[in-house]
Amino acid sequence: MLDLSRISVGDDIHHPLLVLDVQQKGGDHPRTVLVLGNRSGRIESAPFWAGRDEAIRDISKGMLVQVVGTVSEFRGSLQLDATSIRVLPKGSVDLSELVPSVGPVDKYWKYLDETRAAITAPRLRAVLDLFFGDDAFRIRFEQCPGAPGNGHHAQLGGLLQHTCEVVLIARQIARVARADEELVSAGAMLHDIGKLESYTWEEGVFDTTLHGRLAGHVAIGATMLATALAAQPEPVCTTEEAMLLEHFILSHHGKLEFGAAVKPMTLEAEILHFADDASAKTAAINEAYASSELFPNDSRISSKRVWQLDNRWLLRSEADFGRES
Amino acid sequence: MLDLSRISVGDDIHHPLLVLDVQQKGGDHPRTVLVLGNRSGRIESAPFWAGRDEAIRDISKGMLVQVVGTVSEFRGSLQLDATSIRVLPKGSVDLSELVPSVGPVDKYWKYLDETRAAITAPRLRAVLDLFFGDDAFRIRFEQCPGAPGNGHHAQLGGLLQHTCEVVLIARQIARVARADEELVSAGAMLHDIGKLESYTWEEGVFDTTLHGRLAGHVAIGATMLATALAAQPEPVCTTEEAMLLEHFILSHHGKLEFGAAVKPMTLEAEILHFADDASAKTAAINEAYASSELFPNDSRISSKRVWQLDNRWLLRSEADFGRES
Amino acid sequence: MLDLSRISVGDDIHHPLLVLDVQQKGGDHPRTVLVLGNRSGRIESAPFWAGRDEAIRDISKGMLVQVVGTVSEFRGSLQLDATSIRVLPKGSVDLSELVPSVGPVDKYWKYLDETRAAITAPRLRAVLDLFFGDDAFRIRFEQCPGAPGNGHHAQLGGLLQHTCEVVLIARQIARVARADEELVSAGAMLHDIGKLESYTWEEGVFDTTLHGRLAGHVAIGATMLATALAAQPEPVCTTEEAMLLEHFILSHHGKLEFGAAVKPMTLEAEILHFADDASAKTAAINEAYASSELFPNDSRISSKRVWQLDNRWLLRSEADFGRES
Amino acid sequence: MLDLSRISVGDDIHHPLLVLDVQQKGGDHPRTVLVLGNRSGRIESAPFWAGRDEAIRDISKGMLVQVVGTVSEFRGSLQLDATSIRVLPKGSVDLSELVPSVGPVDKYWKYLDETRAAITAPRLRAVLDLFFGDDAFRIRFEQCPGAPGNGHHAQLGGLLQHTCEVVLIARQIARVARADEELVSAGAMLHDIGKLESYTWEEGVFDTTLHGRLAGHVAIGATMLATALAAQPEPVCTTEEAMLLEHFILSHHGKLEFGAAVKPMTLEAEILHFADDASAKTAAINEAYASSELFPNDSRISSKRVWQLDNRWLLRSEADFGRES
Amino acid sequence: MLDLSRISVGDDIHHPLLVLDVQQKGGDHPRTVLVLGNRSGRIESAPFWAGRDEAIRDISKGMLVQVVGTVSEFRGSLQLDATSIRVLPKGSVDLSELVPSVGPVDKYWKYLDETRAAITAPRLRAVLDLFFGDDAFRIRFEQCPGAPGNGHHAQLGGLLQHTCEVVLIARQIARVARADEELVSAGAMLHDIGKLESYTWEEGVFDTTLHGRLAGHVAIGATMLATALAAQPEPVCTTEEAMLLEHFILSHHGKLEFGAAVKPMTLEAEILHFADDASAKTAAINEAYASSELFPNDSRISSKRVWQLDNRWLLRSEADFGRES
Amino acid sequence: MLDLSRISVGDDIHHPLLVLDVQQKGGDHPRTVLVLGNRSGRIESAPFWAGRDEAIRDISKGMLVQVVGTVSEFRGSLQLDATSIRVLPKGSVDLSELVPSVGPVDKYWKYLDETRAAITAPRLRAVLDLFFGDDAFRIRFEQCPGAPGNGHHAQLGGLLQHTCEVVLIARQIARVARADEELVSAGAMLHDIGKLESYTWEEGVFDTTLHGRLAGHVAIGATMLATALAAQPEPVCTTEEAMLLEHFILSHHGKLEFGAAVKPMTLEAEILHFADDASAKTAAINEAYASSELFPNDSRISSKRVWQLDNRWLLRSEADFGRES
Repeated sequence: MLDLSRISVGDDIHHPLLVLDVQQKGGDHPRTVLVLGNRSGRIESAPFWAGRDEAIRDISKGMLVQVVGTVSEFRGSLQLDATSIRVLPKGSVDLSELVPSVGPVDKYWKYLDETRAAITAPRLRAVLDLFFGDDAFRIRFEQCPGAPGNGHHAQLGGLLQHTCEVVLIARQIARVARADEELVSAGAMLHDIGKLESYTWEEGVFDTTLHGRLAGHVAIGATMLATALAAQPEPVCTTEEAMLLEHFILSHHGKLEFGAAVKPMTLEAEILHFADDASAKTAAINEAYASSELFPNDSRISSKRVWQLDNRWLLRSEADFGRES
Repeated sequence: MLDLSRISVGDDIHHPLLVLDVQQKGGDHPRTVLVLGNRSGRIESAPFWAGRDEAIRDISKGMLVQVVGTVSEFRGSLQLDATSIRVLPKGSVDLSELVPSVGPVDKYWKYLDETRAAITAPRLRAVLDLFFGDDAFRIRFEQCPGAPGNGHHAQLGGLLQHTCEVVLIARQIARVARADEELVSAGAMLHDIGKLESYTWEEGVFDTTLHGRLAGHVAIGATMLATALAAQPEPVCTTEEAMLLEHFILSHHGKLEFGAAVKPMTLEAEILHFADDASAKTAAINEAYASSELFPNDSRISSKRVWQLDNRWLLRSEADFGRES
Repeated sequence: MLDLSRISVGDDIHHPLLVLDVQQKGGDHPRTVLVLGNRSGRIESAPFWAGRDEAIRDISKGMLVQVVGTVSEFRGSLQLDATSIRVLPKGSVDLSELVPSVGPVDKYWKYLDETRAAITAPRLRAVLDLFFGDDAFRIRFEQCPGAPGNGHHAQLGGLLQHTCEVVLIARQIARVARADEELVSAGAMLHDIGKLESYTWEEGVFDTTLHGRLAGHVAIGATMLATALAAQPEPVCTTEEAMLLEHFILSHHGKLEFGAAVKPMTLEAEILHFADDASAKTAAINEAYASSELFPNDSRISSKRVWQLDNRWLLRSEADFGRES
Repeated sequence: MLDLSRISVGDDIHHPLLVLDVQQKGGDHPRTVLVLGNRSGRIESAPFWAGRDEAIRDISKGMLVQVVGTVSEFRGSLQLDATSIRVLPKGSVDLSELVPSVGPVDKYWKYLDETRAAITAPRLRAVLDLFFGDDAFRIRFEQCPGAPGNGHHAQLGGLLQHTCEVVLIARQIARVARADEELVSAGAMLHDIGKLESYTWEEGVFDTTLHGRLAGHVAIGATMLATALAAQPEPVCTTEEAMLLEHFILSHHGKLEFGAAVKPMTLEAEILHFADDASAKTAAINEAYASSELFPNDSRISSKRVWQLDNRWLLRSEADFGRES
Repeated sequence: MLDLSRISVGDDIHHPLLVLDVQQKGGDHPRTVLVLGNRSGRIESAPFWAGRDEAIRDISKGMLVQVVGTVSEFRGSLQLDATSIRVLPKGSVDLSELVPSVGPVDKYWKYLDETRAAITAPRLRAVLDLFFGDDAFRIRFEQCPGAPGNGHHAQLGGLLQHTCEVVLIARQIARVARADEELVSAGAMLHDIGKLESYTWEEGVFDTTLHGRLAGHVAIGATMLATALAAQPEPVCTTEEAMLLEHFILSHHGKLEFGAAVKPMTLEAEILHFADDASAKTAAINEAYASSELFPNDSRISSKRVWQLDNRWLLRSEADFGRES
Repeated sequence: MLDLSRISVGDDIHHPLLVLDVQQKGGDHPRTVLVLGNRSGRIESAPFWAGRDEAIRDISKGMLVQVVGTVSEFRGSLQLDATSIRVLPKGSVDLSELVPSVGPVDKYWKYLDETRAAITAPRLRAVLDLFFGDDAFRIRFEQCPGAPGNGHHAQLGGLLQHTCEVVLIARQIARVARADEELVSAGAMLHDIGKLESYTWEEGVFDTTLHGRLAGHVAIGATMLATALAAQPEPVCTTEEAMLLEHFILSHHGKLEFGAAVKPMTLEAEILHFADDASAKTAAINEAYASSELFPNDSRISSKRVWQLDNRWLLRSEADFGRES
């Protein structure tokens, strides 16, 4: 694999890369730019001006291509002057070489399945089984990223990892707050199922679906639950119980302006909201800590305010308080 | 019918009244207050203190009762000192005597049905027919109020009236903006169907259902559409068309902080949002103009800022610009 | 005319272009950039560094010039390396070749004048006639753009077109809301007259005047009305009627934070606010739909969030719901 | 004069009082309440129920009346049970007995007139003279309160006092900031002239006029300036100078959401905004310090948060830091 | 003990009660109201009018008194008509009879002390020992309420209970987020120490101190830490370590508008913020669930929106999902 | 000294320059950029790509270097292509040549010291003397900039200059508002002392310290005061007096969202807040007026909205109102 973080001006490139985006730039002077990448990073092509863009006529997002060209400098960054672009057959490079991933998912499934199996309320377990007992659901759920672009957990398997974190945190808050721990666990497992229909990742490009844009993962998740329940020959839970589970999905963003359909009305829904937010924000900070852009050369203070984290400065301290390492 | 706007201290009361609310007041000194009313207004009972409330043990919201008592004064308003309260059989007084209503609904149906019949896009009409061609739906739709409490169109039939207003306004904006007028009309007809499961009104008391509180009429409407479409043996429209219609429902509040799941993404959804808001706000102003509390004695300036209308003063001008009346 | 959307690197240019802006860039390294354009688009010149800018010493915004030079690439866009710049006499190229325009305005005048003539309230018509019966006013009103820069209706004639749209929408809302339709029409015609003193466009460059910046079109419009009324030998309407008309102008932005002097206090002023907003927002969406930058290559989803439209994604759907085209 | 702060339950009243308000209370049970007062405070009458309100049929706001009645207790406060109400001739009690006032205004005029006379820029002084050299203007300006109700400087003469304070503060900031001190002084003198047409006070009741409600004192002030300038046979200043003065009026509230038409664009306009705000807020704090409601019994911490002052607690400290008193 | 939730109009009272507040009401008609209470609730006295208030001249907040009087009704609630008020010696009734408390605190100390003892970083433990190893500190810390008035944990011992909850939640989030669990625990223990100087509770009345009002518990806590560290003969930690601990205190409110001096800059500070908020909000919901005012008569939906919880409705569901109880 | 505002493409450079920043740019293609400057302006170096950055391995912020290279053009600005970079000994160029400064500070000290000496309250003067009577404090106080980067008074000596302005303005407001002028003066002198520990400037680079980031100058200032008071063998003022002075520091930003720990609770603290804001905003406008970027070529309207000043347009008017210059 080409290591995109170590290329320099003048390097010759002739490696397989994923087409992450085909940016049509309109305006007064139309042009097209390819965004190419693999697991190690990304690089933009030099612009293909309108009328001179035959080389990329058939290139589309998600294709695997072999680019031959040279690295040059542009706008204070590096770009790729491509002399030839050839489409490679799908699957000729492993997806894990091309995109970030959380790694093996067995430990996440183990935790979720054990938690689910331990639930003593039969109707609660029955609703969860509709999803987590279904193999097709599990295959998609263990691949789906937590976010399509720059968000937290934007990796293959990120949704599963995030869901585990939310369950772990939510159960502890539930114990402290003397809430219904099983109900909180169930809400945590279900809260983001709408992301399965809101994101695409199959081609190695994380994107939002048309449905994801038009309805949002919150409303989609609620509809998925309603549809699954309606499809059962016998009701698996009472009407009020179904409403309570739907409410977890609809309220987990906490406030209307953050996309919740309603504010959390139950202690358990409030707990889910906190656990979801805590998992998301701590993951975002850990991702920022790992970013060579924000923390180049092991610096301790971030190089700028972090916009995604409420525009704040971050500090990676190494104070050990005298602890022996 | 007792005219509640003309009673005075010392009047004897012995009329049928609707129990609009049974307010349990807790705190340090628990008590219960009945809110009683009919189409002409409402009056509160004197409080029934805990331990001395046998007379109202079986009274619940929505009951029709005959109260015998006397009007007294309390907290700068009038209240009813009840000596006896007797439950009357349901239906012994006509609902239209007890609650506000928009009156005959034929003209509203005529407009909606003609608009629907004139739609040239077959799959659009087919989706509308799933709802507006269904008698059970129509019966509920023509009764449902536009809001449960103090909101605009809070009358029997208010939802139907509001829907007509939205279609009328939205079509005109669509013509001006060269949008798809049929699509806008369809979106307008569907936008508030979730209110059918969010409100109750059958007993003469307008209230919000548990589902209405836990999910909101926006999300409920989207689920109703999804469920209805899924229940058809053959698809009545394409997947994208279904998404566009669902998007009308999910986005018609315009902004997330006002309860939209997503912002309007199409010209037609934006038009629906404006038409909905224009119908709601102009109705609210007309209702304020008609309020004897805001405009006592034909005053021209409202007696106070109107909180529901963004805390503004209102003026009812009678300037005629020399027009012959 | 040079088609600025089809030029490429290396093209030789020797065409008349309008000087849209002369951007003095200060800071540590002063330089000047010309923004040149015609109806087909715009292009920036290469920077003229301080001390080497003799060629443009006499060039100012609004001049018509003939530029000889070559197209080069800079910052991912095209720019013009000028070798000579010669000022052309004003009027040697027709304004309509140089700036966007709504086209013939007869149909707009026809609608406005008929609406005005049909008004039955004599004092209302008399006030409108002070403006719309004045030829000098009409000449400026039919040219004035709706906005100076990137706003909606930013075309020659845009203000007239926008005014017609507002009247059309406002009358329909007035009918639905049982408001005074004639008063609403009059308010709609007058609401933006302050733009005549707030914008300049005569030289082909849409700009804001010093008065426009220092006072805003809302306050200017109110003063224009007051001055016009004060200049009449006999009052053409009562004091209260004058206040109501002034109130339309002062309140049409709806909220203080959007530039209204006061919130709408009458049903008619509220209607004008909605109609103004609906015309503006739908025009902005239609302009976004037509933008090759937002929708390059007939894409359906916008290439990015549209900042001017509350930072949202836009969808141009072509779903026809089975309609025969 | 009756001292309204020392009456008790059971006291007999038979004194002249001003009718501060005639509150028509509509709603389910219409009634009317008189608010009566003099310089020492105010008291509400017991409600006059609809149909039993003959005694007050001819009473209107601003009348001087003699009330015969008894003090009783109601809603945790005192009220007046009136047995007879008789209208007294206007002027039979001096206005200064009836309403709060800043006292003699000579010192304020002295400061303003000296400041004006010292201005070296002839056109600036000429514009000020249009207003402050006009006797009719001066008579109204020295009476007008700074606010109609609970706002700062809500006393007869309050506007004049506030204007002096603003000039005093603004000149000092101008000196520190090396701004045009004369221009700032002129802006300060003119900034609130619109209040003359926005408030009424002649009858002893401070109120907002219809024009004040419909246009606001900011827009009215700008129109007053424009009209005065237009009425001169010869221009007294240049167009740009007129705009700069108008800009003081239009921008002095600082932000659009606080009622400014535009944000301050010049150093001098920014200074005026600060001086206006500083005068207003410090006056509001001094008025709060003097309030027996907020600081009963010489308490040091306010009895509650002060809503008008951004909902904060106030402290009246008497720390003297060892200073000899 | 008198049970204040079960008294009725006409009851004779002659019990010891705590003076919770002496409300001086100024305004036009000055008066004083006593707020009296014990652990079972509170009741207001009838007002003592100025000049007739000898009976309470010497009564002040925090006194224990014996009131003889009768229960009457006023403003829709009950009040106490006192005929005599006699001051009782302090301590003649146990504090736990008079105010709410979290009960025995041993289990909370056990958890905190074990957690502290298990910390492996010596300088971290040393800083904690400065406070939690000090007996005077412990005595105050185990009594201090979590809030002075209506806030969460407003009980004797509430601060200690809240601190334990925060440590419990924060450690779990730290484990999930791979943060420094010991550092998070230390931050959690220290975050609210400023409340010791911000609140008073010794007399049975929870109140805010003058310092608490003038500086806030956040700034006070930071100063307490700085002072304690400065008072040591040898530094117990490095300068940067001290800053990190101070940062926990200064940032734990998360956002400036909620009172944080700075936003959390480290992963550990962010975790503390979430844990603090989760403990506070879940406690507030549990307290609302237990409120007879919000949930009278075991109702499931709250009787109104809960203002302290972001103005939302609450639901106490009893769905058991088929679980055997 | 090299005049950085007059260099052009192709110029050879071989001058001493200060290293203002060493920007490590991470991301997909790591690189380093030097920001170099002197009192006349700043210029960026061409990027040094990772692996080819030996020349700058030992360069760090604050160093004085001699750069040999050529001016080239990049991204529409000028940059420096360095062929050699040599570190010069500290102090070989005077700091005043390298950074902006307010000039001689004697006049500022004179005003502050006279004001301090005239204070009649002994305990107030004693507290001020702890700081302003201390030579080490004075040396740092007279150098410290008012802001580290682009803020107002970002010059050597800026804090002292700003403090004088605040005292001057605050005293005048105090006189107008009949506040304690001595107390206000003391608060003004102390309000920003926390900046001494929040900024660094010694090397010619204005920066924020780690403590400044983690605690903010408001909290640091409060701690500095507390520590200084605690260090005295005898109390120099009462506890309440100390709180009042601390309150000035903690509340001077006026609102929590602007970084105040608490809102101003006293008249004097409110006055300080206004004076601080007025000094800051007028300085920012004067600095904008002097900026060649905002006002190139003596233009009157700013070239763009000024983001730091609430995103407004600025006007530098030269209207003289007929005044003889």
